[in-house]
Amino acid sequence: MDLKKLLAPRTVAIVGASEKEGFGGDTCRNVMAYADKDRVYFINPKRETVFGKKCWPTLDSLPEDIDLVVICTPQKTVEDLLRQAAAKGARGAVVYASGYSEVGTPEGKAATESLRALCKELDIALMGPNCAGFMNYIDKVSAFAFISEERDRTGSIGIVSQSGQLCLSLMDSPATGFSYSISAGNCTVVSMEDYLQYLVDDEHTRVIGLYMEGATQPEKFVSALRAAALKRKPVVVLKTGRSEKGSRVAASHTGSLSGADRMYDAMFKKFSVIRVRDLEELLATTQLFATLPALPQSTGFASINLSGGETGMCADVGDMEGIEYPDFSPETIARLKELLPGYASPANPLDTTATISYDADVYASVLQTVMDDPSVGMVVLGYTLLHEIADPAIIYMTEGIEKVAAGGRMKPTAMLPFVESTRNPTYATRLAKAGVPVLPPPLYAFPALRHLRDFIRYKPEEHTLDMAIPAPAGKKEHRTLSEFASASILKEYGVPTPEGGVAKNADEAVALAEKAGYPVAMKISSADIPHKSDMGGVRLGIRNADEVREAFALIMDNAAKNAPGADIDGIYVQKMLAPAGMEVIIGVNNDPQFGPAVLVGLGGIFVEIFRDTALLPAPFGEAEAMAMLESLKAAPLFKGYRGKAPLDMEALARMVANVSRLAAEKRDEIAELDINPVFVYEKGQGVRAADALAVLKA
Amino acid sequence: MDLKKLLAPRTVAIVGASEKEGFGGDTCRNVMAYADKDRVYFINPKRETVFGKKCWPTLDSLPEDIDLVVICTPQKTVEDLLRQAAAKGARGAVVYASGYSEVGTPEGKAATESLRALCKELDIALMGPNCAGFMNYIDKVSAFAFISEERDRTGSIGIVSQSGQLCLSLMDSPATGFSYSISAGNCTVVSMEDYLQYLVDDEHTRVIGLYMEGATQPEKFVSALRAAALKRKPVVVLKTGRSEKGSRVAASHTGSLSGADRMYDAMFKKFSVIRVRDLEELLATTQLFATLPALPQSTGFASINLSGGETGMCADVGDMEGIEYPDFSPETIARLKELLPGYASPANPLDTTATISYDADVYASVLQTVMDDPSVGMVVLGYTLLHEIADPAIIYMTEGIEKVAAGGRMKPTAMLPFVESTRNPTYATRLAKAGVPVLPPPLYAFPALRHLRDFIRYKPEEHTLDMAIPAPAGKKEHRTLSEFASASILKEYGVPTPEGGVAKNADEAVALAEKAGYPVAMKISSADIPHKSDMGGVRLGIRNADEVREAFALIMDNAAKNAPGADIDGIYVQKMLAPAGMEVIIGVNNDPQFGPAVLVGLGGIFVEIFRDTALLPAPFGEAEAMAMLESLKAAPLFKGYRGKAPLDMEALARMVANVSRLAAEKRDEIAELDINPVFVYEKGQGVRAADALAVLKA
Repeated sequence: MDLKKLLAPRTVAIVGASEKEGFGGDTCRNVMAYADKDRVYFINPKRETVFGKKCWPTLDSLPEDIDLVVICTPQKTVEDLLRQAAAKGARGAVVYASGYSEVGTPEGKAATESLRALCKELDIALMGPNCAGFMNYIDKVSAFAFISEERDRTGSIGIVSQSGQLCLSLMDSPATGFSYSISAGNCTVVSMEDYLQYLVDDEHTRVIGLYMEGATQPEKFVSALRAAALKRKPVVVLKTGRSEKGSRVAASHTGSLSGADRMYDAMFKKFSVIRVRDLEELLATTQLFATLPALPQSTGFASINLSGGETGMCADVGDMEGIEYPDFSPETIARLKELLPGYASPANPLDTTATISYDADVYASVLQTVMDDPSVGMVVLGYTLLHEIADPAIIYMTEGIEKVAAGGRMKPTAMLPFVESTRNPTYATRLAKAGVPVLPPPLYAFPALRHLRDFIRYKPEEHTLDMAIPAPAGKKEHRTLSEFASASILKEYGVPTPEGGVAKNADEAVALAEKAGYPVAMKISSADIPHKSDMGGVRLGIRNADEVREAFALIMDNAAKNAPGADIDGIYVQKMLAPAGMEVIIGVNNDPQFGPAVLVGLGGIFVEIFRDTALLPAPFGEAEAMAMLESLKAAPLFKGYRGKAPLDMEALARMVANVSRLAAEKRDEIAELDINPVFVYEKGQGVRAADALAVLKA
Repeated sequence: MDLKKLLAPRTVAIVGASEKEGFGGDTCRNVMAYADKDRVYFINPKRETVFGKKCWPTLDSLPEDIDLVVICTPQKTVEDLLRQAAAKGARGAVVYASGYSEVGTPEGKAATESLRALCKELDIALMGPNCAGFMNYIDKVSAFAFISEERDRTGSIGIVSQSGQLCLSLMDSPATGFSYSISAGNCTVVSMEDYLQYLVDDEHTRVIGLYMEGATQPEKFVSALRAAALKRKPVVVLKTGRSEKGSRVAASHTGSLSGADRMYDAMFKKFSVIRVRDLEELLATTQLFATLPALPQSTGFASINLSGGETGMCADVGDMEGIEYPDFSPETIARLKELLPGYASPANPLDTTATISYDADVYASVLQTVMDDPSVGMVVLGYTLLHEIADPAIIYMTEGIEKVAAGGRMKPTAMLPFVESTRNPTYATRLAKAGVPVLPPPLYAFPALRHLRDFIRYKPEEHTLDMAIPAPAGKKEHRTLSEFASASILKEYGVPTPEGGVAKNADEAVALAEKAGYPVAMKISSADIPHKSDMGGVRLGIRNADEVREAFALIMDNAAKNAPGADIDGIYVQKMLAPAGMEVIIGVNNDPQFGPAVLVGLGGIFVEIFRDTALLPAPFGEAEAMAMLESLKAAPLFKGYRGKAPLDMEALARMVANVSRLAAEKRDEIAELDINPVFVYEKGQGVRAADALAVLKA
């Protein structure tokens, strides 16, 4: 399958060419407006010309081979046309027709299967069905079923959307520029993941905007994200389903904290994918990346505004989003004092007062002064591009910006309006040409700037860009292991567990206890008894051989009485752990698509009430595990809180990383793993898994 | 001072009338475009006419008295003109000129004082100086210094802004309608609080939008907010300064958690004032209130969209903002199944699929069906009003909405675009006329809907609409009380404290101990020794008379040695408290402007790391105190967490309410109060203030 034939074809045939409203007419209208027409053939047996361009009766009648066929005719004609197109060399096809899997009927499903098989047979990369088509603005290929007002939309944002409706909304926004806009439809043949990889590889695409409902090809998806991360190409994803309950079948204690959607979040973080909450945020973020001539060299922002109110908003909303406004240097402040009215007090965010916005030279000098400050990586100019109210400020400000840009010491700059300003496309376009994006108002703008900052901070070499994608799930039954068996797996991977072992009889129990050292705990060992205490299967604080024997008899007695059918391995004798400085939980949940992710958090109320946990897909290293710990709100508790001794974060990070290695290597065996509690001791004293429960896949 | 003369004058004189750009010219241009011209006199000794309208040489020469003078001329002319205007009966004035307190110089300050004194002498309500003026759209009075594109902006939003720049941005937004738009400037004479009260009283103003930097007249401010709350008139406030450190001088443990800005938050909640984060959110929220013909009767929202992606966004962003989408009734679902394509699955949020948007009748039927569902209070229609892309859906949808509106069973409805849609003013205006506001995209729209929901839920009768505004602060020195003295104040107000008293000698100590019952704690009692333990001033767990005598001698000895200069009251002998189910802190911080607010939270990490506290201005009752406790994230810990016994929340609420009464009544005495910890026992067992520290104002 060759996506070039679909997305960047040399020759195109439009079947069902027409001048009427509808798929055929709208596609032809777009071809006439946007496409390189010489490489397009219109097909319609009933017409001589369409919009003055020659029409051919059939695909067969065309004078040369084609790469792409765009089928504007109804579902029943599709398969026959695909065969005809293939005979004329076509290896790409766009099918608008609906009536396939999206209708949810057996007929729809059958039509889908048939279409998929045919495309495989003919080696055709098919977009859709049930899609709105695509625009390739770079090569001027138009195969799109909705008419847009004529405007040059060429740019560097590549869009893939599983919804046509959202594609339309994006293309409708002024001052935007796209490389590709792809309404992917049902993705029956070419998948969302294929398009994503194509845009990652495409040199004309600087930033990718993706609307997805979910991935269906995890390996391809991860591979595309990895490639983007290594290339440092931003991928901005709108994925719905945050609020819906995950599809997990089994819900374990920690599992409920790491549902399917949280897995996407964690994965996106790993690969520096920017996740947005709605379409406007996607547009703002992609446009910011696409319009800036270069990314900021550092993450310090300077905010420049014309009034105190605007400055206050930038301070407040910026702070809410974690934007840092470094203090200006004394030189910058001194120079600003010369440039600004006496009553202005230069600081960052800066209120220049409105007066300077009426003098392009002064405005340029202020801007240049701020840009020359070494702590400033990027400048955000607060100003509403007024449309209905006459205020010449924008003229002088734009001239000022253009002067600075011409001077060669420009730093990345964006314009921030306080009410929505896309209604002033004249200045939005002029500023975009100067490399200055016009953002939406603050509640969209500052998240977009935060995404930019996070993207700049990300270093691919600090992340393990692997995921442990599991084999497709087979049986759904799961099997719980005993504590000892669970601990044994942990031990294999260097995770410290209590010393001890399983005793079949009292003598063995005494021997194990003497070896481990008193006091010991003794617990019934059986995969059939997950709640050991409830049936009298646990004895703690045992101090000598006599007590061991006594406990052995008592526990076995209780087991016989309270769990008569249970398959009993023996009794797990373990050294009692010293009280911990803190108790932590570590969990592994194995996502059916993307494999295991490791969750870490403080136990009890921290997890249950404050949901203070970190999640990262396995595998990963100690530095990444440490970053997880640091990301917890409760992180200060590790570091000598209120005069207590600092705890062994390093040992805990090592343990979390080891668990991630275990989870990755055993991704096809372990469904869930719950280490709860983990005892964390003072710095240098290490950590221990005090209890563990593994659930196997089969 | 009569604000009617300023804001709704019968007659107006514009001094400095002109046709040139600038204050005079722009004001006259606006008069010609918007004002009831017959009641306006232009004044300019050098011109016969301005824009064809007769010009008078001086105020003195006018044929009748005037209510309002608008002074467009420079600062040096202002005072003389005010005297002339007053002689012609003027009691209102607008002064655009700058050069007053805003320039921060001694001259500016002197000019301000002089202006204030003159207005007092002449009884003139003066707007500004250093302002952009105002528009009264209801009575067609225009005294505004910036030109706007001609359009009827009459509506029911009343705007007061301490920034002219923000006023311009608001007026620039299409499909908005205002009753008043006031750029208040320096507020030297008429204060922001005066304008606010005026708009609360004004019957044409349905919703108030206020940009404020801070209040300067707390009594008036609170009085206006109370009036608005009782009238159920929404006040939407943008107040900057969230991120800036409060101006408090003394920082106490709890004080740092209830800084000046948080006081505004707490006060706004009390009076149901809607606080927004930026100007676009202010605009979206005021417009939502102003455009809906009536407020929803219940807080269940229905979301209707044309695609799965849009439905997903509404589900996700709605959930993020706490919007509730109740399940449709079986009847609604059955009816929707008839109306929608077979593959649609009716639920709330609803994906109707795009097909129905091309049939006004079907769209109307779907809309009506959803509105008829008893759980639905308001409907949100997701659709981007496309502007550049031809999609006839909006035609049919708008017709459908109009059909439903005409049918008489309309419920409140808003339109939600997914990228910004104000560029399509045609449909925005047509929808607004049908009572359907067009919101900004989701990250603004859902917060606005949440504000609406909170406003509907608020019942003024459930809130104590009083604040304990203190007398203006005198001396800045504060005086710390001893624990016993602090506890004594608490006791007066029914707050349970440990039994005991201060002993001057060992015999008294024994007597107190025997009366309280052993074991007791003994603590040095001195306002000069806040850190009692550090100097050996505390002994715990004392079990008999001998131990009391021994402890008495020891503590006195330590005090003499370690705090030689301290003024010692004696030794505080108190009954040791039983261990608590939970420890809570209660703090009072006395805001210099708005008086005391009570803070409550769980002690230790809950407050310090998770900042899980509630704050409410005093006074308030037990039900409000209980609502504070319920608002804590940690609230589940009170209610029998993990099998523990439920705690005495009622007693705690009573204590918090009592502390609020204390704080309100002693607002001119107590600067700070810190009760830390409060021991909370099991249900029915009450609470105790285990330690307390009061700081007096003088």
